[in-house]
Amino acid sequence: MTRTPTETLLTEELILDPHAAAAMFLTARTANSFDAGEISEETLQAVYALTKMAPTAMNIQPLRITWVRSAEARERLVAHMVDGNKAKTLRAPMVAVLSYDTDWHELLPTTAPHAAGMVPTFAGNDALRQGMGANNAHIQAGFFIMAARAAGLATGPMGGFDAAGVDAEFNAGTPRKSFLVVNLGKPNGIVDRERLHRLEFDVATATV
Amino acid sequence: MTRTPTETLLTEELILDPHAAAAMFLTARTANSFDAGEISEETLQAVYALTKMAPTAMNIQPLRITWVRSAEARERLVAHMVDGNKAKTLRAPMVAVLSYDTDWHELLPTTAPHAAGMVPTFAGNDALRQGMGANNAHIQAGFFIMAARAAGLATGPMGGFDAAGVDAEFNAGTPRKSFLVVNLGKPNGIVDRERLHRLEFDVATATV
Repeated sequence: MTRTPTETLLTEELILDPHAAAAMFLTARTANSFDAGEISEETLQAVYALTKMAPTAMNIQPLRITWVRSAEARERLVAHMVDGNKAKTLRAPMVAVLSYDTDWHELLPTTAPHAAGMVPTFAGNDALRQGMGANNAHIQAGFFIMAARAAGLATGPMGGFDAAGVDAEFNAGTPRKSFLVVNLGKPNGIVDRERLHRLEFDVATATV
Repeated sequence: MTRTPTETLLTEELILDPHAAAAMFLTARTANSFDAGEISEETLQAVYALTKMAPTAMNIQPLRITWVRSAEARERLVAHMVDGNKAKTLRAPMVAVLSYDTDWHELLPTTAPHAAGMVPTFAGNDALRQGMGANNAHIQAGFFIMAARAAGLATGPMGGFDAAGVDAEFNAGTPRKSFLVVNLGKPNGIVDRERLHRLEFDVATATV
């Protein structure tokens, strides 16, 4: 099938204005370095105020965020990153460790009063809670990246770390499991390499 | 700690204009019904043109989308939805089945030429591919929901279906696994119930 050129699609099909579409999706890039400017507490609160609006199954909201601000905590985190992620994580103005709470069912009376009767069912099924926690927190992580961009930040999400080590440092004695570390800072305009190829519509989608 | 009021944060901390922030995060709601208007092929292409920009580990892009447009395919899908999701999925102007490709490593020479040497490593580790596929496709699903909103659509994401049954219908003979069904349509303004509680900053985040 002949495909409509992307530029035409984006002009004619979006309700989001071109400037916002660029900032949120099209020109935003994963960053390995940042402007040196500090990230305020208020900016982090704004990022969370958007992130928390993400839809999750039954509104379980398993995502938990540890803002790693102090130099001491940063060193403890970096010790568990793979070598290629150490320097950029040390230098980032802010770093967020994203975890999911495997005991999200305990909050159901608050997050989903209509489903509070299911607390005992979930309490007895660790594998189900683990899977739902991980899956929904990753959807929330997508929103977190978008929320950071909405607050003018560039993000550097990384899976390259020893999750057990990070959990021992920051999640000890809790039901949280770390799954993503995200460097944050104001963009510095440095592009390390060309953007990698994105799969075409006809490769990644099909109509039935 | 005293927290800055959310309205102040959103006014002072976002680069996204208030109209866009509302459409993308703050007033957007999960929809159970839609305006009857049909969703064009061009709109779906625009949704994908934004979705595909999501960051994924090594750019593996495991997300695959099946657009369920025909009445016949819709019936086959709905047969595998839980009862509470059947009627709304039948009536939605468009439905997308989101799956992840567990054989994403085969595309690494295209998606991540710098990592193509790792194809044999990933080929020999089904559990690693499965986990990375699921996790990264869920981040992409977060972007998909945002992309649909950017194209003026409301979304109704649902985990309530028999994934094995859906895979037998739509993913037979492929390495794809379905994980989310998303109803799509233009918003009709109907709000079924008050928005559920979102966890506060001090509950879901901590600073170290």
